[in-house]
Amino acid sequence: MAAYTRTARAADALREIRITPGFLPHADGSALIECGNTKLICTASVDEGVPPFLRGKGQGWITAEYGMLPASAASRMRREAAAGKQSGRTQEIQRLIGRSLRAAVDLASLGERQIIIDCDVVQADGGTRTAGITGAFVALQMALDKLSAAGLLPHNPVREAVAAVSAGIVGGVPLLDLDYIEDSGCESDVNMVMTASGKIIEIQGTAEGAPFSVEELGALIKLGQKGIAELVRHQQQALATARR
Amino acid sequence: MAAYTRTARAADALREIRITPGFLPHADGSALIECGNTKLICTASVDEGVPPFLRGKGQGWITAEYGMLPASAASRMRREAAAGKQSGRTQEIQRLIGRSLRAAVDLASLGERQIIIDCDVVQADGGTRTAGITGAFVALQMALDKLSAAGLLPHNPVREAVAAVSAGIVGGVPLLDLDYIEDSGCESDVNMVMTASGKIIEIQGTAEGAPFSVEELGALIKLGQKGIAELVRHQQQALATARR
Amino acid sequence: MAAYTRTARAADALREIRITPGFLPHADGSALIECGNTKLICTASVDEGVPPFLRGKGQGWITAEYGMLPASAASRMRREAAAGKQSGRTQEIQRLIGRSLRAAVDLASLGERQIIIDCDVVQADGGTRTAGITGAFVALQMALDKLSAAGLLPHNPVREAVAAVSAGIVGGVPLLDLDYIEDSGCESDVNMVMTASGKIIEIQGTAEGAPFSVEELGALIKLGQKGIAELVRHQQQALATARR
Amino acid sequence: MAAYTRTARAADALREIRITPGFLPHADGSALIECGNTKLICTASVDEGVPPFLRGKGQGWITAEYGMLPASAASRMRREAAAGKQSGRTQEIQRLIGRSLRAAVDLASLGERQIIIDCDVVQADGGTRTAGITGAFVALQMALDKLSAAGLLPHNPVREAVAAVSAGIVGGVPLLDLDYIEDSGCESDVNMVMTASGKIIEIQGTAEGAPFSVEELGALIKLGQKGIAELVRHQQQALATARR
Amino acid sequence: MAAYTRTARAADALREIRITPGFLPHADGSALIECGNTKLICTASVDEGVPPFLRGKGQGWITAEYGMLPASAASRMRREAAAGKQSGRTQEIQRLIGRSLRAAVDLASLGERQIIIDCDVVQADGGTRTAGITGAFVALQMALDKLSAAGLLPHNPVREAVAAVSAGIVGGVPLLDLDYIEDSGCESDVNMVMTASGKIIEIQGTAEGAPFSVEELGALIKLGQKGIAELVRHQQQALATARR
Amino acid sequence: MAAYTRTARAADALREIRITPGFLPHADGSALIECGNTKLICTASVDEGVPPFLRGKGQGWITAEYGMLPASAASRMRREAAAGKQSGRTQEIQRLIGRSLRAAVDLASLGERQIIIDCDVVQADGGTRTAGITGAFVALQMALDKLSAAGLLPHNPVREAVAAVSAGIVGGVPLLDLDYIEDSGCESDVNMVMTASGKIIEIQGTAEGAPFSVEELGALIKLGQKGIAELVRHQQQALATARR
Repeated sequence: MAAYTRTARAADALREIRITPGFLPHADGSALIECGNTKLICTASVDEGVPPFLRGKGQGWITAEYGMLPASAASRMRREAAAGKQSGRTQEIQRLIGRSLRAAVDLASLGERQIIIDCDVVQADGGTRTAGITGAFVALQMALDKLSAAGLLPHNPVREAVAAVSAGIVGGVPLLDLDYIEDSGCESDVNMVMTASGKIIEIQGTAEGAPFSVEELGALIKLGQKGIAELVRHQQQALATARR
Repeated sequence: MAAYTRTARAADALREIRITPGFLPHADGSALIECGNTKLICTASVDEGVPPFLRGKGQGWITAEYGMLPASAASRMRREAAAGKQSGRTQEIQRLIGRSLRAAVDLASLGERQIIIDCDVVQADGGTRTAGITGAFVALQMALDKLSAAGLLPHNPVREAVAAVSAGIVGGVPLLDLDYIEDSGCESDVNMVMTASGKIIEIQGTAEGAPFSVEELGALIKLGQKGIAELVRHQQQALATARR
Repeated sequence: MAAYTRTARAADALREIRITPGFLPHADGSALIECGNTKLICTASVDEGVPPFLRGKGQGWITAEYGMLPASAASRMRREAAAGKQSGRTQEIQRLIGRSLRAAVDLASLGERQIIIDCDVVQADGGTRTAGITGAFVALQMALDKLSAAGLLPHNPVREAVAAVSAGIVGGVPLLDLDYIEDSGCESDVNMVMTASGKIIEIQGTAEGAPFSVEELGALIKLGQKGIAELVRHQQQALATARR
Repeated sequence: MAAYTRTARAADALREIRITPGFLPHADGSALIECGNTKLICTASVDEGVPPFLRGKGQGWITAEYGMLPASAASRMRREAAAGKQSGRTQEIQRLIGRSLRAAVDLASLGERQIIIDCDVVQADGGTRTAGITGAFVALQMALDKLSAAGLLPHNPVREAVAAVSAGIVGGVPLLDLDYIEDSGCESDVNMVMTASGKIIEIQGTAEGAPFSVEELGALIKLGQKGIAELVRHQQQALATARR
Repeated sequence: MAAYTRTARAADALREIRITPGFLPHADGSALIECGNTKLICTASVDEGVPPFLRGKGQGWITAEYGMLPASAASRMRREAAAGKQSGRTQEIQRLIGRSLRAAVDLASLGERQIIIDCDVVQADGGTRTAGITGAFVALQMALDKLSAAGLLPHNPVREAVAAVSAGIVGGVPLLDLDYIEDSGCESDVNMVMTASGKIIEIQGTAEGAPFSVEELGALIKLGQKGIAELVRHQQQALATARR
Repeated sequence: MAAYTRTARAADALREIRITPGFLPHADGSALIECGNTKLICTASVDEGVPPFLRGKGQGWITAEYGMLPASAASRMRREAAAGKQSGRTQEIQRLIGRSLRAAVDLASLGERQIIIDCDVVQADGGTRTAGITGAFVALQMALDKLSAAGLLPHNPVREAVAAVSAGIVGGVPLLDLDYIEDSGCESDVNMVMTASGKIIEIQGTAEGAPFSVEELGALIKLGQKGIAELVRHQQQALATARR
């Protein structure tokens, strides 16, 4: 994308963020997260029991599933349930979400139970995987709050809040939180999952066009840290609302 | 369900209905339909081209897909994309939706194109398949309006509006528009798909408990006709809003 | 189908029915049912044990599977085992058969065992699902008789015999028990599953062409009740033969 | 199986054979074959067109599919269409049937068309694969006769009739045409597919218990040649009936 | 293949054989077997536990899996894991390998454990299934030696060594151990699995072109017995090396 | 992993690297790569034709598939072809390999053809995905050389060599090129795909234990750049050998 200038917001600005906790009443925790035009429903469901490989080990587990409504994208996508399998992209994303949330939680103090995260994209405009992680953390914390309220947890097993954002180089300029048009045109793209204190849980950088330098990576990480701090504030506000 | 008395509404009353047209901007037509606590996103996507068995026949096609968000139900359901196949129930429902809408449309005047309907349940409290048909008709008409506006259709191919509702006998009493609790406890259950003029497109009655008489069936159909008339009014209001 | 006159039999006549009990000696119950040129092998196999969702509940279960020999239809169909999955139509039919037979049986008095019904179409000329239900009831009753004879059942768990038939409007005329040609040309088609006493277990009506009125539905149901009564007589004769 | 003596028939006798041509009227060729209590429906369906790897090569193809009704065996088998795949055994058998029939036919003179053989076991008592080949040859020849009668074949593309039979050593004694009980108890088992003139198309010998000597193999082959000659006579009679 | 003369080796000569025991250190037993340009990695893995149908019967089991690296063949083959299923050919081969090895072993003295054989083709030039059996026997014996050394087996459960080879008629001449070119051009092809003492465990002969006579089969079996004896010597040398 | 000290090699040293070009003669390009005990066979196969989404666009494509021999890992893994699908991990790895190689090549100058990369793990001891990329580049360049030699490419479409390596923090110490034991015990792990000139094509960092700081990431990247430079030298030597 040659000579791109972002006009609607600053290069280091997030899109407008809105998190609506408790969106799906059946789930143990849930949130609708909107990052600009990207919208996902994130839920957390507690399942008493763990996968076979953890049975009897006295610790819990967090796993995630990801999906897109067929009409969420600009042109209708094939429904994965009809196709009979989840695409490689879907599996990669849900593995990332699960790994990121597990890194934020002390699984031992969760007890022998599993929390299943669902991230379903209602509308896609870039950054669905990072928005999913950010929203899923809110749903997860709500489910943990519910377990705590029921006296089932000795203490909050969350070590630190976790959020995620992308940054990329478009037309030579490092930009925070790419939308779909920017993402399609970017030369390189980094997805970052970080803690409230700015430490890295997961970083995935890809040269879509030309390879990028270590210095460019540094600039993108800086943007990411700024964005994450702001997203964590949105999460805390949403959780404060939910806890009221 | 012994001695059930419905208190929140009359035996012949629908749940509160709300139809929000244009809910998903990427789709050619879309609506969020809420029938009490049952909520679905219905979309219609135009696909230039028809399935192989219709190629060269100069007519169009309408097909439907149905899904449920895992956390839409009272206890989390397995994601069908993860299970690797759609359940028999899902296939039965999407075949019903497709058949019902095709019966309402003159496929010949649609031209060689296909309209794909998606009905995704966001929250389930009984009657998702009938709500899906009612909402999908709105999405379908919006997509057809869009084709008309683009000069691609000689005239509106819809013959008559179509809507759907259930009725059942609970504790001996015929009730219109069962919610999940009522549906679970009913002795017999009839799903009706009808036209605005009260004619039958599809009727499916099942004795969940004891077999029912032809007279009982007659009573349920009467309830259904009343409900359908009201649903058609909601559809027309939603379409009027969308067309403004 | 314009101006159709059925010449081979009266509008309210069934095709020639023949039920041969004990057709497959390995099965606990079996019958070959022939309705005109439609021929199915129906079997019932007793399985000591119930599906997981019923374990320990002290009741039994009946489930059904349906298949067609590839060469049973006018043009060879793809073998579902080779395709790797059962079509939506197949699943819909086998769900219907299972539901219909469960409605005729007191599952609690069946004990913790499952009866598996197989309906395999050897030759298809319309009405395979209804013929399947009618034939499967005979196979089911034979399997129950065998359990009774072995002292495994306190009493016959069948509440009432169940049979099924179709009726439809062809060329404006209501006709009982459509064959394939009539079914392809009919404007509307109703499949009915009823008890010996004429009560409805399942009714599925579909407008293949124009929607139909409630009065037309009434006429078809009357035809159905007449047909069911006759089918039940055939079942009783077959069972009398089998019990000799 | 120690000290087995076959009493119902001689060691070198086939079970009672019955071939009913034209059993399924929809198929281009069909036969019900009964070898004692083993019963299969064999059909041949002509498909104008060949598999992709043969397109434009000016020759035809013969392929085969095999299935068992769930209740055909002594204890109900799982339906492969429900399991979602054909077992290794099924695939092995259908590959064998296809290969055997292709070896009997001059594929070049068949033209660019495919003949699909279906062998469906209605009742199983040992030897279903060999009975399937013997019966399928009749169905195949009938389909070829039909093509010839329509002037679509320059001459009969069958080089020589083909039939199949098993022989095995049970309790130390070589026996022709094993039934299920004998097959389960045999020390070694040979399936033979041969031409009318006694040449080998396919031979598959397996030591179920102890390995067997080359001399023992010789004795079994001799039995097989005798059985094949008799089976070919049954095929010719059935075809003569069909051609009348 | 008209008028073929094998020049590189005698008609009754094997290709150059090399067996490298212990090729994969993680496996309980392993061997790289090279028969001319055909190369396979064969491994044996001990699994404490048996398949469900053998539980509690006090005997062991041997099963086999077979695969080909996509680039092992002359033109790249589709990866079966990507295709989502194993071909009929693959299943047939792995069933043959498992059956052949089970016939060589006293499963009762193996105890309630399973040995899983993997045969993976690294380079294919004809005869992969027979080379697989020959190499797998070495891997199997190594795994059994390891169990013996750990005091887990009362005695060596192998009754007799087992090896496999092909022979075929090419241009009218019987040849031992066909390579890919010869196999493609042969009129008939016999795969033989035999014991060290020359007895038959499995024999599979197929007429690729014209049917063959019983005398021709005899000539091919003689070649096979000669080849097997030589292969058994190679196996013994490899095992002697491994045991050192 | 508390207080780990790597003794066999320096913290910034690669394991012993060996690349054997031309390992599989059937493939257009191939290499066996050994990184310590991790061994993979990498091949490149030229396919004239591109995937549907690229047809007529005048550019080429590179795709990759990844697999593990069941016995390559410390305890036998289930064969994915037998399981009927590739795991999420497999799909993630093969997507990474394909993306990395595409980033190194000018796809437009490749012409309308596809190069299929296969990376098959023969022995696994950590770092299979990075070794796969490093080895696959050699196979890819060999296939391109072959196309060039045939006059099918105007110039070498490779922009710059690409290689990959991991680095991680184990017991607080940053280490290059983790083996399986180190990888299992590491606190954080970064996989890097870089060009010969030290630019980033792909970077994937994961906190396996505690989140890591941006400074720690910097230290790991430095190690990676050193390792990549050395791996590129090995690739060039292997290619020089292959070109001789």
